[in-house]
Formats: sequence, C-alpha cells, structure tokens
Amino acid sequence: MSDERRSLLAEKTPFPDDLDERLRAQLTFLVEVDQLKTILRQSPLAAADRRENDAEHSWHLAMMVVILAEHSDEPIDVGHTIQLVLLHDLVEIYAGDTPLYDSAAGVDQREREVAAADKLFGLLPADQARRMRSLWDEFEERRTPEAKFAKAMDRLQPLLLNWMARGGTWRTPGITADDVRARKAVIGEASSALWEAGRRLIDEGETRGWSRSGVSRP
Amino acid sequence: MSDERRSLLAEKTPFPDDLDERLRAQLTFLVEVDQLKTILRQSPLAAADRRENDAEHSWHLAMMVVILAEHSDEPIDVGHTIQLVLLHDLVEIYAGDTPLYDSAAGVDQREREVAAADKLFGLLPADQARRMRSLWDEFEERRTPEAKFAKAMDRLQPLLLNWMARGGTWRTPGITADDVRARKAVIGEASSALWEAGRRLIDEGETRGWSRSGVSRP
Repeated sequence: MSDERRSLLAEKTPFPDDLDERLRAQLTFLVEVDQLKTILRQSPLAAADRRENDAEHSWHLAMMVVILAEHSDEPIDVGHTIQLVLLHDLVEIYAGDTPLYDSAAGVDQREREVAAADKLFGLLPADQARRMRSLWDEFEERRTPEAKFAKAMDRLQPLLLNWMARGGTWRTPGITADDVRARKAVIGEASSALWEAGRRLIDEGETRGWSRSGVSRP
Repeated sequence: MSDERRSLLAEKTPFPDDLDERLRAQLTFLVEVDQLKTILRQSPLAAADRRENDAEHSWHLAMMVVILAEHSDEPIDVGHTIQLVLLHDLVEIYAGDTPLYDSAAGVDQREREVAAADKLFGLLPADQARRMRSLWDEFEERRTPEAKFAKAMDRLQPLLLNWMARGGTWRTPGITADDVRARKAVIGEASSALWEAGRRLIDEGETRGWSRSGVSRP
C-alpha cells in the first residue's frame, strides 16, 4: 500500500502544461484524494447491504457535526470542526484503514500514517500542506474542544451503523460489550449527552444479544 | 421515489423509547441521510471503475472548498460554504438525481425537490429544520458569495472527473462542447481563475475529441 514509487492519479491524464502552477498542485491533490472513495471500512451501511467507504464516512461525520454540535460540553467552532472530520481519514489513502478492533494493525499505525501525511499533503502548495498537517495533528492530538468533538463523531457514527445493523462490528470475534464501551468512551470527553445516548445503545445491544457479554481478553 | 408512505430507515431498528426526544429526532435524521450514499450520479470516479454516489460527491466538494476558497472573486466564509455543499444534494434522497444533461428530467425537478426538502428536513427539531431549509434555499438561489462558490464547486468537480475519464458525461449523446461550456459557465460567477482553468480543460477536451464539436441542438 505504501509503495513510494506509485504514480499519482493525476498523471493518468495530465493537466495542460499552461495551467497556473499553484492551481495545478491543488487540482493534483484534489484528484489524488478521489481514492478516499475506494478505502473500505468495516462498518455496514444502514441504507444498503455493503460496507461503507472513507469518503462516505467523512461526509456523514461532517453532517453529524452540523446537527449535533449543540451537544458539545464546550463551545465549538462548527466550521473548524467540520474541516477536521473532512480530512481526518485522508492518510488512509496511502496507509489503509486500521479497524478499531484490530490491535495488531494498530502497532505501526502512527508511523504509517505520518509517512502518508507527508506524501499526500506534500502535493499541495507549501502553505496549504502545513495547514492540512496542522489540522490533522490537531485531530489526532485530541486536545482542542473541536478535535474532541470531531473524534466523538468518529466513534459515534459507526455506533449508529452497528445499532442499525443489530450488531455489525460489535460481533467481531473476541470482542465483548465491555471492549465496545472502552473504545467508545472518548465520546464522553466531548459530550456527556451523546455519551449517555451512546452507552444506552451499547447497553441495549448487549441486552438483545447483538454483542457478547463477559470480560475483555487479557 | 417519492412514496409518501415509505417508512423511515430508523424504523427498521427503532431507538430505545427513553432516548431524549430532541436527540432522537436528530439521530433519526442522521440515519435517514445514510441513503445519500446510495444515490448514484452520472460521473465516473477517477480512482475506480464505477459511478460516484452523492455522499462521495458532497465530501469531495467540501474538500474542494477547503483547498480552493482562495480563488473566490469575493471573500467567502469557508465554514458556511462547506455546510452548503454538505447538504445541497440531500433532497435527492427522495427526489433522485437529475443529470445535468437531461433536460426532460429537469422539468419538474424543483417541485420534486421542494417536496423532498419538506419531508426530510421535517424529521429534525423545528429550529434545525428551518435552518437546513434556509441553507438549501441559499444554495439554490445562488445569490450570496458562499452559494455562488458552492455551486461553482458542484460544476467544477464533475468537470475534473470527466477530464480524468477523458470524456465521461461529455460523451452524452446529443451533447456538444458548447453545451458543456454553457452549463459550466456559472463557475465564472464565483471565480474567474477557476472558470479560466475549467474552460481550458473543456477546450482541450474538445481538441482531443473527448467531446463533440458543433452547435447545440435547437
């Protein structure tokens, strides 16, 4: 996946030579990120019998920010929070998706994603590359109210899809309802109301047998 | 498509009864809009051999706003513009996609889409329903600098995909390069730089035979 020699998507149909250089760099990036639509996640769609891709997921998070921002425990800048969720998964274009319940894949995840960020954002004019990297770092560090809320959306959205699927990835072998609670608890760092609702869905799912009860693996 | 009796997606797996009423309405809406991921457009992806769906398209437009906002001829509020593109196609969940080069389907498009907006936004708490409708009206009326820029992205993005596909929907039977220019000219209402680049791609595509030369149909 992280083949450094892989050519850019835009090179398949190069833009005319006389295009403004800065705009050409921007369009090259915007064509390259079309690949986000091909990165499959584990989550099943609610509206169709297939898995979700990263572009659909990112759009859904952005829409959730618009509708649910009022539930943030701290005031947040909605436009800024939306930008965080729009780009939070871009690094997966080169680094791939790392499933939440796959501990092994998580080992070198950070390293792979930083290399991907350098390569992908490096397509942009330098000022915009720095800004995109800064936004992605903000999301990853989860310290600002906006980043906390963005991360909460990233955890709440698949929870909703799993609820709709009556289990979904909650049924991952070896995973218990306690594991789900542990991984979703970051929602509570952004919004007590949304975490209360999220916990309610997880509890109810466990009661209905959509996830496994019992203690976590050691 | 506009079957009024069609049940809501969230009714397939109803939320627990004790969920807060306002939050339940918001989550019901957020599950319903999952269907945007199933509305297919005419545009071919650059990254895979299939057509694009509305959720992917909306995400791509939002990312374009982040990167290309500097090219707007008038100053724009980036966060507000992103919200316009995120929701601009939501009405297609009930009204369906109306291809740009299909004049017949355009006849009752407005009527179908207004009915869809009433139904879909009506799932939200009243204050948010009004706000979403106001944002959608703003996009459709194309009077604010933000709405003009959002519409420009909506026209520029498939142009990029058609360029990458060496034709794409430019090859629609009966459509000429002049038709493409006429339908894309609204880009120029928002950004002279982006319209210059867009026209350059259309011209070059015509030269290379990716669209048909000649006058428009009467």
